[in-house]
This record gives sequence, structure tokens and C-alpha cells, in this order.
Amino acid sequence: MESLAVLLLLLLLLLSSLTSSSPHPLDPLTFTEISTVRSILSSHPPSPTPTPSLQSPLFPFSNHPKPPSSPGSPPPLPSLAAPPSPPTHPTSRTSSPSTSPPVSSSLTPPSHPSAFPRLTSSDISRASSTALSDPRVIRTIQNRGLDPSRINCLPLSPGWFGPQEENRRLAKVQCFALFYNITANFYMSPVEGLTVLVDLDVGAVVWVRDEGRGIPVPTGEGTDYRYTGGAARPGVMMERAGGGTGFEVEGGHMVKWGNWELHVKADERAGIVVSTAKVREAEGEDWRTVMYKGFASELFVPYMEGSEGWYFRGYMDAGEYGLGSCAMPLVRLNDCPRNAYYMDAVFSGEDGRPFVRPDVICLFERYTGDVAWRHSELFSDEPIHESRPKVTLVIRMVASVGNYDYIFDWEFQQDGLIKIKVSLSGMLMVKGTAYQNISQVPKEHDLHGTLVTENLIGIAHDHFITFYLDMDIDGPNNSFVKVHMTKQQISPQESPRKSIYKFNREVAKTEKDGRIKLNLYDPSEFHIVNPARLSKVGNPTGYKLVPAATAASLLDLTDPPQLRSAFTNNQIWITPYNESEEWAGGLFAYQSRGDDTLAVWSDRNRPIENKDIVTWYTLGFHHIPCQEDYPIMPTVSSSFDLKPVNFFDKNPILRAAPYFEDDLPVCETTARGELPKCNSI
Amino acid sequence: MESLAVLLLLLLLLLSSLTSSSPHPLDPLTFTEISTVRSILSSHPPSPTPTPSLQSPLFPFSNHPKPPSSPGSPPPLPSLAAPPSPPTHPTSRTSSPSTSPPVSSSLTPPSHPSAFPRLTSSDISRASSTALSDPRVIRTIQNRGLDPSRINCLPLSPGWFGPQEENRRLAKVQCFALFYNITANFYMSPVEGLTVLVDLDVGAVVWVRDEGRGIPVPTGEGTDYRYTGGAARPGVMMERAGGGTGFEVEGGHMVKWGNWELHVKADERAGIVVSTAKVREAEGEDWRTVMYKGFASELFVPYMEGSEGWYFRGYMDAGEYGLGSCAMPLVRLNDCPRNAYYMDAVFSGEDGRPFVRPDVICLFERYTGDVAWRHSELFSDEPIHESRPKVTLVIRMVASVGNYDYIFDWEFQQDGLIKIKVSLSGMLMVKGTAYQNISQVPKEHDLHGTLVTENLIGIAHDHFITFYLDMDIDGPNNSFVKVHMTKQQISPQESPRKSIYKFNREVAKTEKDGRIKLNLYDPSEFHIVNPARLSKVGNPTGYKLVPAATAASLLDLTDPPQLRSAFTNNQIWITPYNESEEWAGGLFAYQSRGDDTLAVWSDRNRPIENKDIVTWYTLGFHHIPCQEDYPIMPTVSSSFDLKPVNFFDKNPILRAAPYFEDDLPVCETTARGELPKCNSI
Repeated sequence: MESLAVLLLLLLLLLSSLTSSSPHPLDPLTFTEISTVRSILSSHPPSPTPTPSLQSPLFPFSNHPKPPSSPGSPPPLPSLAAPPSPPTHPTSRTSSPSTSPPVSSSLTPPSHPSAFPRLTSSDISRASSTALSDPRVIRTIQNRGLDPSRINCLPLSPGWFGPQEENRRLAKVQCFALFYNITANFYMSPVEGLTVLVDLDVGAVVWVRDEGRGIPVPTGEGTDYRYTGGAARPGVMMERAGGGTGFEVEGGHMVKWGNWELHVKADERAGIVVSTAKVREAEGEDWRTVMYKGFASELFVPYMEGSEGWYFRGYMDAGEYGLGSCAMPLVRLNDCPRNAYYMDAVFSGEDGRPFVRPDVICLFERYTGDVAWRHSELFSDEPIHESRPKVTLVIRMVASVGNYDYIFDWEFQQDGLIKIKVSLSGMLMVKGTAYQNISQVPKEHDLHGTLVTENLIGIAHDHFITFYLDMDIDGPNNSFVKVHMTKQQISPQESPRKSIYKFNREVAKTEKDGRIKLNLYDPSEFHIVNPARLSKVGNPTGYKLVPAATAASLLDLTDPPQLRSAFTNNQIWITPYNESEEWAGGLFAYQSRGDDTLAVWSDRNRPIENKDIVTWYTLGFHHIPCQEDYPIMPTVSSSFDLKPVNFFDKNPILRAAPYFEDDLPVCETTARGELPKCNSI
Repeated sequence: MESLAVLLLLLLLLLSSLTSSSPHPLDPLTFTEISTVRSILSSHPPSPTPTPSLQSPLFPFSNHPKPPSSPGSPPPLPSLAAPPSPPTHPTSRTSSPSTSPPVSSSLTPPSHPSAFPRLTSSDISRASSTALSDPRVIRTIQNRGLDPSRINCLPLSPGWFGPQEENRRLAKVQCFALFYNITANFYMSPVEGLTVLVDLDVGAVVWVRDEGRGIPVPTGEGTDYRYTGGAARPGVMMERAGGGTGFEVEGGHMVKWGNWELHVKADERAGIVVSTAKVREAEGEDWRTVMYKGFASELFVPYMEGSEGWYFRGYMDAGEYGLGSCAMPLVRLNDCPRNAYYMDAVFSGEDGRPFVRPDVICLFERYTGDVAWRHSELFSDEPIHESRPKVTLVIRMVASVGNYDYIFDWEFQQDGLIKIKVSLSGMLMVKGTAYQNISQVPKEHDLHGTLVTENLIGIAHDHFITFYLDMDIDGPNNSFVKVHMTKQQISPQESPRKSIYKFNREVAKTEKDGRIKLNLYDPSEFHIVNPARLSKVGNPTGYKLVPAATAASLLDLTDPPQLRSAFTNNQIWITPYNESEEWAGGLFAYQSRGDDTLAVWSDRNRPIENKDIVTWYTLGFHHIPCQEDYPIMPTVSSSFDLKPVNFFDKNPILRAAPYFEDDLPVCETTARGELPKCNSI
């Protein structure tokens, strides 16, 4: 085996030197190289048939050669696929062997008799055919009224659950009925309870279990996902097609896009206000209410510096300055793309006189190259490759509150999801210092931030944006349900598994139940449901609030800034609708004492079950500045989603159309100064 | 006041009826309406000058009228801006008063003598001019060698820190030096330590504090952010310009895009492998190493069902099936946009014969309409509005592992950030059931999932994707630093604040220190730094790993699937580089017993300080299915970032160019069947 590896290496080096364009040392093996390796190895029985691949070369990266494993560590395990090279030889592909350190691999045999390489495609088809040729399997399939010739079986990894199945390569086969006249989606027609254990090397069935005889096999009606023509797709990136926006704006504020209808306006305090958002699955169907009103209620920015000039910096930007008031005209082509539609705002000055702030909100249809849904299917009559482009509607405003710029995005998806994103840019609030280099700072001196350049410290701070979300799922009376996941131990009598998680639906009765502190290790989903409106199979229709990256305030609850912004004490709050409770930090925020916050209202602990409720979510950022934030900060973003959950009876964009070659105008480059040639639209 | 409100309402109703296109009940006040309100209110002294805005109407939403506040709750607070309407009158703007419930607002005066409405623009300029006309302020500015006429002052909210500053409207003024011949970015030239308390209504300085006399005021060299011409911008969405990709691919694998250079290939087990990623701030500068190699090492998918046909379902998709092996040709125009470049893979079958899998990776330049950085500045000679488009490079592969489709994206930004995103689509693994409706399910029967349609349960499960990230920040020898934020109490002698957070840099010595369980309430940043390479001001150059939404496994540590996938026990692990430690679940994963996992390697607790280290991050999803996931699942995504942190001495894209009118070809619509007319490029 060792001589074989030497031979192989020499051959590869020869191949490398022969090819005219020398490959990069990290390039994968070429077709020819794989063929060559295979023929060499095949001529040396009893070597098991290998899957040729390259041992990773220790390629020098920017003049630092990748070192071999540290001498003190245990010898590395051998590579499955490539015969490891002996210690005295340079690595394959290295064009300058003199700079390559020797490889330290040795030929220690694997110490895992029960672990195997991954399944091959032959393993997969063999497992299926083995199972399907077993008379017991045929019988149980026939007993369910199914035709054994119209069954697809897939080998599932059996995992490992103790010694009883060790030392042989196994697969647990799960079968599905093929109703090809109805659907290509056989996954939705499982022959439930039938499990076949197959020995992959022997090609024999070890056992057959059938525990699902009473369970019907669905016929797959309505599950096909292949495109069959027709179907509407809101906008096709109209800008590419030479104009238009892909949506309509009626009366300056009512926006109609695809399966959404909503009212958009600018507010001096809140910035963007989205009202009466309604969605429907398809044209002609009834509109369904989702959100009565949503907006950024407050933005709390505490700095982590207690000295005279800094301790008071704990801003409440919406209530103290106004997010709309601080929103400047958007920069066309740069703040929003070319296909954007702009909305002006009419605000009033402090003397009550109206003025127009132009281009303060933009709306645009967006195609980012992302996918709305997809599937590739090999285990089918013929391969299926279906994918749908994701096209969304973005509503944007930027509030420039002094040094900082906050980009607020409301993004509506065709599948019913609403993504609310906040991006931060602009300038750090920096503190002057005599230090020019970290080396001058005494150990005991806390900078409370980062020296971002000579004489300037970017002070550590947080940003908390609290959103008011008056969700009205199919009407005003909703409930908040915590779908709480908890670990459940399983006894050995029940299962070879020792644990699963189960989930319980905990309906919040009063405001106390609606206060949520997120916890990665005690997770929940957060549903706003209409308990009176059930789906086709009896689930309450709902939306879930899906947090993404966020941060929690570390300040003391009695610290004055935290007291005034006590609405950040939890990430989620639920309150009963009250027309006066819109501003999380109080109606008057400037110099407020914290006696009119969301936290105070919530303490009344009012009933919230099956009521018109308001959901509050706080999106947080810790910001320890870095030098890249100087002198202007690259955007940093986070978001959260409002996502339909059993709101639609099925995927509402199942019938969406894909893009075709003619959908987008394709322009050909022409000589400079001439018009490019484009295809027709 | 009440009669005034009635008058106002009647007038508004009149106005509404007079306008030809009747406004939507939620539309904001128009220019004319604000003027009218103002003139009415101004004619009724001593009413304070109001900022007119509409009381929110209780607009019926989809035939459900918005109810007034529930009778049991306390009376709502009055609206600041709009004179609240009396209880007996319908809300303004409601076009059909008969359907409107009465408004329950009352005129309770605000109970917060110390809280005020937000600052007006006049407040802001008055605060600044008041401070700058104070002789003490002028003197301290002159004492620093600055010209008082070249100073900008901004009023900062004083917050609230006890009774001493109550009952008067205050601002704390902070000043900045204007070096307009050098920069418009005055924020980087603070007159540190000078704080001026201004009484906004009296227009007088209450006190002046100056504690920063020894602190230099930086001149703002290099901080201007206005566009001055020149500057390279990688690609300008070449596809729009009629062809091209915006990047180069040399030898089939070396990708050169903007300030990035990296090697991309497909691997049968890992899927996309990105190697030797190097970045530089500008053309002509030295390339700097960032990552030697990165890929998805394992993908663990445990199902939460312990019964016979389900307990073993805890897949390790990379090691059991192969992410590259399961990657199918991408669907052109739908999996990737028109401007994508496609890469084939040469894989080998189980008999060692090579075969070509076409279009298995796509690369494309992306402009989503998002912003790379921006700032709008009003407090300047003339308003500044600068914004830069964010253009990125996306590398994508989709692994269709049986029913599920995993979209893997590596996205490179011009500011040095790398975003790694995983999106899930495809089909649920469903379980057959006799139930057709939730109402048939006995309370004690746990479905272990959601009834997604008649006779099918989507079983709850998780997805954990563990990435191998061999970061080489400016060379192979790096350290892992936990920048740990902790709450610090402050004594009343030190500050009116009671708390801040401080952050400590904890350098990981051995593998034990490199194991991280994320915690929202005990947060850290996670830096990989080169301790030998310091920035201009002495910070170690580094990248930080920035988690976003994720999930942690809830399974028992001794549960066999969890034991085999023990690499998910922490979200982050750091190991010393070892060429044999690439596969988090072990070299052989199929039927593995968990004795060759990342968790086992890490237990050796090897030194990791200032060594060639590998960072492992696990991205997790809990997936409780919903009906929308049936019969094919809309994509769900999460991601994490690798972000430069003191790697660059300043924002590396400060000099990026904006988009101009001529940058993108603009096509005009023409009659169907004709070529659209486009501008030149």
C-alpha cells in the first residue's frame, strides 16, 4: 500500500508538470487524474475500491507555509479516500516541493469498526431494491391496497444505538407510494410504520417492522410542485423591464403589491407607519387582516461611560428627537435602487406651519437572487429541478439622528412573511483622549470603548429599537401563545432514544404571561393567533414573531436610563389595545422619569386572552466600536420576522411561476457611446 | 378647548367632503389641513402653539371596527399634538361616521411635570447659539486654540437623574470643532469635556463644565466622507450593463473580485470549500490572509419522535450522504440570477470512475438595494447626503439531501465582512396518521409535531450546521479572544448613573477556554486575532465571529444521536489546526459511535494561544412544522458573519464611489415585440 501511494504521488506530480496551464495546488482532481488514480489502484488487488480524492496539500498561504500537525498531538487519522503519502514525500500538487513541509500522516488503521464512509448512489438503489424484493414487504404493501411496483423506498441512516447493529453496514428503509398521475411529491405519501432493515453489503433484509396498518396513505392530491403554467407573479422586477415599480400606490398611501395591500405613511415621531396590512393567497379570494398598525415606538441608546460629560447619554431618539423629524430625503440610486418609488411627508414646524419633506420614504420591489422555495428530486421517474425566485416589497426610511443613521426596512414577502430590519450607519459618538496608542494606556485605566484612531475612543453603547405591532390576525381578537419546547427524557422501555423535546402551547392569560425574556436553552415560538379561526385541519390561524440576532440591556433596572427605557426589560411584551399606549417610553419622553412606560402599563396585568392585543418587540445591538467604524460606520443590521403559522392551509406560493429566459430584458454590450442591444419584453 | 376641538373636527369633515378624491381615513394631514388647523388654533389664545396631527381614527379593518379602549382600563392619556375629540363625536377622517364607535379619550392633563415633547429644530439651534454666546464657553474654546466661530454645538437630551433638573426643559450641549477646509465630519473633532447645560425655554446657560483641557481636538484629517471622484467600485452589476459577471475566475477556481481573492471548489462531502481567502484595502496594497479554509463540516438533523419507525432519525447529512454528492445542477435564472457564473464539479462514483456534475456552484455579484454606509448631515454648512450601495459576491450551492434542500451561501462584502448563510427548503419528513383534524386528537396524545394536512404530521426536528473555519488572520498564528461584557455597578460618588457594562479581553489558553455557549444575558464578542500584528493604534488585528439567530440542541448529552453529534454541545469551539480534524462528527460518520468527534478532540485541551487555530461554529434551527411548510417549504434562513475588527485601521470602503445616473443602463419600455431603448453604458 505504501509503495502504491508513492507511485500515485509521482504520477500526480508528472501529470501536473505535463499539463500546460499548471493547476493551483488546492484545485480538486481533474477527470483525467481521477481516471489515472483509479486504474493504478484497480491494478493492485486486494486494495478496496477507493474513491480517489486529494490529500489536502499544506499549501503556503501568503508566504506562511501551512505547518504540519504540532509534534505533541496524536497522529492524525488517515484520510479515507486518498492513500496518505508517506512521511518522506512532499504533498501532491505542490509545485515547489522545496517549500513544502513533510506530511505527518501515518497509516494507523481506523479504530472504529462500527463507523463507515458515506452511502454511495449504488448503496441507495441497492437498499431500495433489496427491500422491495422481500415478500414480507410486498405483502404489507399489497395489504394496504398499494401496487408494489409503484413504491419508492429510501435508505435512511440507522444511526447508532448500541452494539446490536454494529460491525455491518445497515440502512433503515422507508417507503413512499408513487401516485405519478397525481403528484411527483411522493414524500407526502409515506407508507407509515413500515421499516425495513437492510444489510448493505450482504444485500439482504435483516428484519421488517410494520406498525402502521391502520394509517392511510395520502394520495398526494395538491402536493405537486412542478410548474404547469399560468400563475401570477407580482412584478418581474419591472425596473429591469424598463420602467414601473411592480406595485401601485393609490391616493399616495395605499400600496397594492401582489397578494398584499397596506397603508404607508410617515410620522414625525415613529418614522414609517404601516397600517391595515392585509394578505390573500390568490387574486379573487378574500383579503385577510394581519396587522392593524406597526411602527418603531422608541429607540434607546445608552452609553457605557459614567463620567461627567457622558453619564447622561442614554437617548430615546423617537421621543426626544423624532425618527420622522430626523428622516432626510433619501439619496436616489444609493439609498434605494433605481426602481424605487418615493413618498413625501408633510410635517409641521414648531410654529405649526406645514412643510414638505420630499423623498422621505422609498418603496421598491426587490429580487436579490434568493430562492422562495425549491426542490431537486433524483428519486423520481425523471430528475426534477424546481426553484422559484424570491421577490419582495421593501419600504424604507432613514432617520439621521445627529451622528447616527438608522435605516428602517419593512419587507413584505409573497409567502406572507414580514421582515422588519434596522441597519445602523453614520458616525460613532467618540470621546477625545490624550492617548495615541493602546500601549500608552495603563492597565487599570478603562477606556469604556475602543481607541479607534489617535486621540479618539469609540465609547461602547447599545441600541434598542422597540416596535409596536398591533397584529390583527383574521380580526382584532387574538391570543398570544408561547409554544414552549422542553426536553423530555424517554425510558429505555419506550425507545432506544433517551430524549426528545416536546412542545406545549401556553396561552397567555394576562400581561404577566406576555412578558418574554428570550433564552437559547429554554426556547419557545411566539404565536399571535386567532383562537376563533381554525385552519382546515383545526390549527388556530396565526403569525409568529421570529427573533434573530438581538441583545439585552445589561444595565441595572434602577439605573435612571434603564428605568426610563424599562420597555427594554423584556424582548416581548403583550398589552391589550389601548389607543393611548403607543409610545413605549411614554407620551412625553424628554426628561421623563419612567412613570409612563410600557413596563408600567404592563404591571396592571390586564387580561390579554382573545382580545385586541398589541405585541411589542425590542431589537437590540451591543456596539463595542472597532477601527472599521471610523470615520463612518459600515452598516450593521439585524431584523426579526412576522411569519404566517398555520395562517394558510398550505404553502401560499406553491403555484408561483419561475423565471423564464424571456422574463428579464437581456442587454448585449455594445461599443461605448452606443445603445446596448436588448431583447424584447 | 373642547369647543375648539369640535370646530376643528367639523372643519376637517368639511374639508374631507370637499376634496374630490376622498382621502383614506388613515392618511396623514395634508398641507392645507395643517395650515387650517394652525390658523384656527392661533386665533384662540392662550392655547399653546400646537403641532397639528391627527388623532388616530378607529378605522374599521376588514369589517371589524377597531374597538375603543376596554371599559375596565384606566382612561388613556391625551394625545400631545392633536386636541383630543370629545367623547360624543366621531373620529376625524371617518367617512362613514355611523360605523365609528365613540372615542373614549378624555382631557386628563399629563401627570408628568418633568417630561416634555421632543425637541424642535428651533430648540436645537437655540441651544447651540445660547451655549456659543456664553463668555465661559468662548473662553474655554479659545483656550484650546480654537476659533469660537468655527464650532458646532449640538443639544443632547439630559435624560433624567433625579429632581435637581426637573420642571424645566434642558439640553446638555456638546461642541465640535469645524475644520471645513479638511473635513465635513465634525463628529470626529469633539471639544472633549466641555458640557454646557442650557435652559431651552429661558434661553440661558445654567452651568458650564470643562474637564477636558488636556485633551487634544483632532483636526479631522482623513475623516471626510463626501465623494471626491476617482475610487474603484468592484463591478457595477455587470449583468445590468449587458453581460459579464463583475469578477474573474482563473483556472476554474481562483476567484478575483474587488478587494477579495479566494479559491472555490466543490467537495463531495463538504459541498462548497472556500480556501485562501485574502483581502486588501485597495489595489496595489499587499494581500492579507483571512481564512485558509472554510466549509460545512457536518449537518445534524435529529427528529423528536421516539417510536419504532422514527427514533433513529438523527441524520448527519455530510458524513452519511455528502453535501456535494447531493448537490444537483442549479436551476438557471431561479436558483441563481441571470448574471451568475457556474462551476462544474468532477466527482467519482463508488467504482472510482470520474463524472462531471455540471452547474453545481454558482457565483454572482449582487446588489440588493441595500446600503454599505451612509450619512445625512444637517448641522453643516450645507446639507450633506452621502450613501454608498452595497455590492457583494455570492457563492452558492444547494444540497438536496433526500427530502430537504439546503442552500449554502458564502457572501463576501467589500468592507471585509463574510456572511455565511444557510437556507432550508424542500419537503418535510412527514408521518402518516389516522387523524384528519386536531379536534380528533385526545389531549394526552402527543403528535410530536403539527398536523399539516389531513393524515400527515410534520414531525418537530432540528437542523444544526457546523462550519469548519480555519481563520488565518494575517498569518497562521492566531488567538481566540472572548471580549466579555459584564455589568458594573457605579457608586453614587462616581456618577449619577448606577451601572454600565465594561468589557474584558479574555485570551483563550487551551481548548477548554474556546468552548462557548452563547448567552444573551452574559454576552461576549468572539475575536480571532493575530496577537503579533497590531493596528496603527495598537489593537491586535482580527475578525469577529458574529452569531445571528440560532438554536441549541435540547437533547440529553448521553442520547445516542447527541453523543454522535456532540460537536453541537457548544456553539463555538476552537481547536489547534490538525490536518486530520476536519469532520466534526468523525472521519467516518455512518453508524459512528461518537468516539471521533470534535468534542472528543477538544477534550485533549491542547494549547490554542498564538497557534494555528480552527474555529468551529454551529448554526441551529428548531423546526416545529406549520401548514405553510406543506407540501413544499418556503425558505427559512439564518446566517452568521465573520467581520473585520481592528483588522483595517479605518473603514476600508470610505472611498467607495456612489452610483450615478449613468452607471446602470436604463431601458425604456417600447411596444411589445420591439427592443426596449436603453441608454449607453
